[in-house]
Amino acid sequence: MENALKAWERAAAASGPLRFVDICLRGVGQVMFQDNPLTGAIFLLAIGWGSWLAGMPQVWIGGLVAIIIATATAIWLRVEEAPLKAGLYGYNGVLVGLALPTFLPATPLLWLYIALGAVVSVVAMLATARAGKPFGIVALTFPFVLVTWLMLLASHGFAGVAAAPTAIIVSPIVESDPLNLVAFLGGVFKSISQVFLKGSIVTALLLLVGLAVNSVPAALFALGGAVVAVLFAHLFGAESDLITGGLFGFSPILTAIALGTVFNKPSPRVIVYALVGTLFTVVAQAATNAALAPLAIPSLTAPFVLTSWLFLLPDQRFDQKKA
Amino acid sequence: MENALKAWERAAAASGPLRFVDICLRGVGQVMFQDNPLTGAIFLLAIGWGSWLAGMPQVWIGGLVAIIIATATAIWLRVEEAPLKAGLYGYNGVLVGLALPTFLPATPLLWLYIALGAVVSVVAMLATARAGKPFGIVALTFPFVLVTWLMLLASHGFAGVAAAPTAIIVSPIVESDPLNLVAFLGGVFKSISQVFLKGSIVTALLLLVGLAVNSVPAALFALGGAVVAVLFAHLFGAESDLITGGLFGFSPILTAIALGTVFNKPSPRVIVYALVGTLFTVVAQAATNAALAPLAIPSLTAPFVLTSWLFLLPDQRFDQKKA
Amino acid sequence: MENALKAWERAAAASGPLRFVDICLRGVGQVMFQDNPLTGAIFLLAIGWGSWLAGMPQVWIGGLVAIIIATATAIWLRVEEAPLKAGLYGYNGVLVGLALPTFLPATPLLWLYIALGAVVSVVAMLATARAGKPFGIVALTFPFVLVTWLMLLASHGFAGVAAAPTAIIVSPIVESDPLNLVAFLGGVFKSISQVFLKGSIVTALLLLVGLAVNSVPAALFALGGAVVAVLFAHLFGAESDLITGGLFGFSPILTAIALGTVFNKPSPRVIVYALVGTLFTVVAQAATNAALAPLAIPSLTAPFVLTSWLFLLPDQRFDQKKA
Repeated sequence: MENALKAWERAAAASGPLRFVDICLRGVGQVMFQDNPLTGAIFLLAIGWGSWLAGMPQVWIGGLVAIIIATATAIWLRVEEAPLKAGLYGYNGVLVGLALPTFLPATPLLWLYIALGAVVSVVAMLATARAGKPFGIVALTFPFVLVTWLMLLASHGFAGVAAAPTAIIVSPIVESDPLNLVAFLGGVFKSISQVFLKGSIVTALLLLVGLAVNSVPAALFALGGAVVAVLFAHLFGAESDLITGGLFGFSPILTAIALGTVFNKPSPRVIVYALVGTLFTVVAQAATNAALAPLAIPSLTAPFVLTSWLFLLPDQRFDQKKA
Repeated sequence: MENALKAWERAAAASGPLRFVDICLRGVGQVMFQDNPLTGAIFLLAIGWGSWLAGMPQVWIGGLVAIIIATATAIWLRVEEAPLKAGLYGYNGVLVGLALPTFLPATPLLWLYIALGAVVSVVAMLATARAGKPFGIVALTFPFVLVTWLMLLASHGFAGVAAAPTAIIVSPIVESDPLNLVAFLGGVFKSISQVFLKGSIVTALLLLVGLAVNSVPAALFALGGAVVAVLFAHLFGAESDLITGGLFGFSPILTAIALGTVFNKPSPRVIVYALVGTLFTVVAQAATNAALAPLAIPSLTAPFVLTSWLFLLPDQRFDQKKA
Repeated sequence: MENALKAWERAAAASGPLRFVDICLRGVGQVMFQDNPLTGAIFLLAIGWGSWLAGMPQVWIGGLVAIIIATATAIWLRVEEAPLKAGLYGYNGVLVGLALPTFLPATPLLWLYIALGAVVSVVAMLATARAGKPFGIVALTFPFVLVTWLMLLASHGFAGVAAAPTAIIVSPIVESDPLNLVAFLGGVFKSISQVFLKGSIVTALLLLVGLAVNSVPAALFALGGAVVAVLFAHLFGAESDLITGGLFGFSPILTAIALGTVFNKPSPRVIVYALVGTLFTVVAQAATNAALAPLAIPSLTAPFVLTSWLFLLPDQRFDQKKA
């Protein structure tokens, strides 16, 4: 596999179109912090399966279209080459492209809407990166959240792309069933697949494989983050349907990977810090659910962005921290 | 006209009261980025016409009172001289003074409210300028938006200045009529006059004249921004009454002027960039309409501020950029 | 008293446990900007009285538990020693610990919730301090507001800690009774006690004593801020129950102390500036009440934080300013 990746890298270096494909694949992988085209390809497969299963192929196509447009936009804007090649201008675009057809009806205008969102996701990425620089923090998925929130809110006023508003209202009624093993495992795995807005265990397993081919710790922290989030949400009596559907776990998973493996090296102190961050992301998830319910828009990965920024800003110098 | 301006400048330099008037007029001009007392005077005429037409002279008087108080406050606060003389501490004040009597009833306490808003607009301008400095971005009309939002929200709890809340609720019902030429032109011109919260074609024409005496490109980008915004909002099925009333175009116009002529020199690449920004401002307008409807406050120029900051933060180095 | 404080300081320097107690007490004092363990002890007494009077001892215990956990967390996180010893990592924790049991029912899970909030308050303090550094502004009580807002919002979705939502909805109906002397004095003193979420005149008097033992100007500005806030809120027709309950005055008091005595030395110009800031905090209070009513969460000290940041960012160099 190592050799195959090297051969691919050589091929991409020699060919413009292959390099473009490589950047797009890495962009998909960067949704979970992995700069690896194979990870991106497995992720794409996982998303495709989840979209097909849900009877919504337009979601997968939306993601593909958006990553291509976002990458092309980044090239047109003459962004820096290293982050471009690492896929850092694409991961927000692919998420915009997945989210809009997930929450809006597949009208002809939707495709123009996706294209605009993909273009603006790159501008928003550049803007967020610049804004975070004095504080030493990176953009995470904030550009995706900002652009998608605005476009979903706007859709309420645009008949050409408007959804029935009830489709995405989070129910304020709270009811918690006992958590049996099936429900627990369903919640854990669907939490992983919900990172890409899917509720599918096969998708989750593929995503774990995609993570593991690039970083085994990342896969472990994803799994651990999901377990912790599902248990904590259940302990505090969150609504069972949301827990078992994975809707309380996808942001905590990203926090766990970010705090535990990306911005710090794993260690006992780091694990404790990442654990607290992961738990607080569950709180932030419930909070944004409540705050956004009147606006009929979903939380997306805002709880992850908010909590991770909160826990990264202090710039804790854990001994084993990367340079 | 060139000579008349020079004579005025000499007179202002020699007289304290005339300098004060000059600063106030430039403050009015700066609402649309023009540092020119003649532009400001024509704008004042345009606002006066629109206020008289709407049977609301208190709006015009509110603007006048506020620009005077804001300018006096800036002097008391010993702000830097160059931006003071360019009117940069006045444009938020005049907007606060126009907005409060537009949305609130003309009670005696309203005038105290306007005075407080005008004073705080200067503090907010200094604060925003400082906050934006590390990122190389300017305040735009954020101080106006912040102060006016707070004061309109607060009015819900103050019987002495409270409006009937229904007066400013944005209807969530979306219906789009065919766009005939009269409706199209009405939407375009009223978009221009709505920059000063007016729905009047004569006001719009006067504003275009005021722009053109200082900057023909600014007038062209204002017109172009209005055309693009009206067409895009109609294409996506926004509510016809809002479009033809100019309520989808005033923020995009400001974005078009800012991105196209103020912070970049016009060029093909800049025009494309400004076009995307202008389109996204329409999205942001629909989004803030939806987000603020439960709070019964208007979007003001927040869509312009948000989008322009987003498109200015990346600091794109278009070749012809000003130093 | 001076001597007693010195003897205490010597004892604290010699003993780990006493130093820990000293840091906790200073943390309580820092809620009103006072780095003094005696002030903190008097404040604790005042809070205890108010909690007992309201039949809610869990509030006082919550505050105690939270300050201990927050201080321990700060030590575990190896924060800087000078601000740690001054209690700057504790004041947000104690407020979180007072606020959660004030607004949520005393279930067993509440105590775990308070513990999590206390831990995260320290992370949020470090994050806010870092974020404010490029702008020369300090955290104030923003970490408390952020953490508590998120946890109260989240409680709507957690059956284990959920309150009946009606308990904290701010009524939008506005009615203003004549302000007689008893109502006026009640409003003034309860404004002071509401800084610690209490409505008790005895608590207010104890808090004033606690302020005065460390800073007589702070006590005077607290009293002056309360008087100004009550009169202004009444003049504009705010709801009488809110005014006399102290709910329009606690944030303005903090603004008055901050702008008048902490970040500037008192002088005529400073008093005018602090007065405008105090008045605008009343506006911000009414605004956040209206904005948060749909979310069923209270404003906390957000009006103070917002207004004080707005008035501190301009970095006005009043002549007598501290170095």
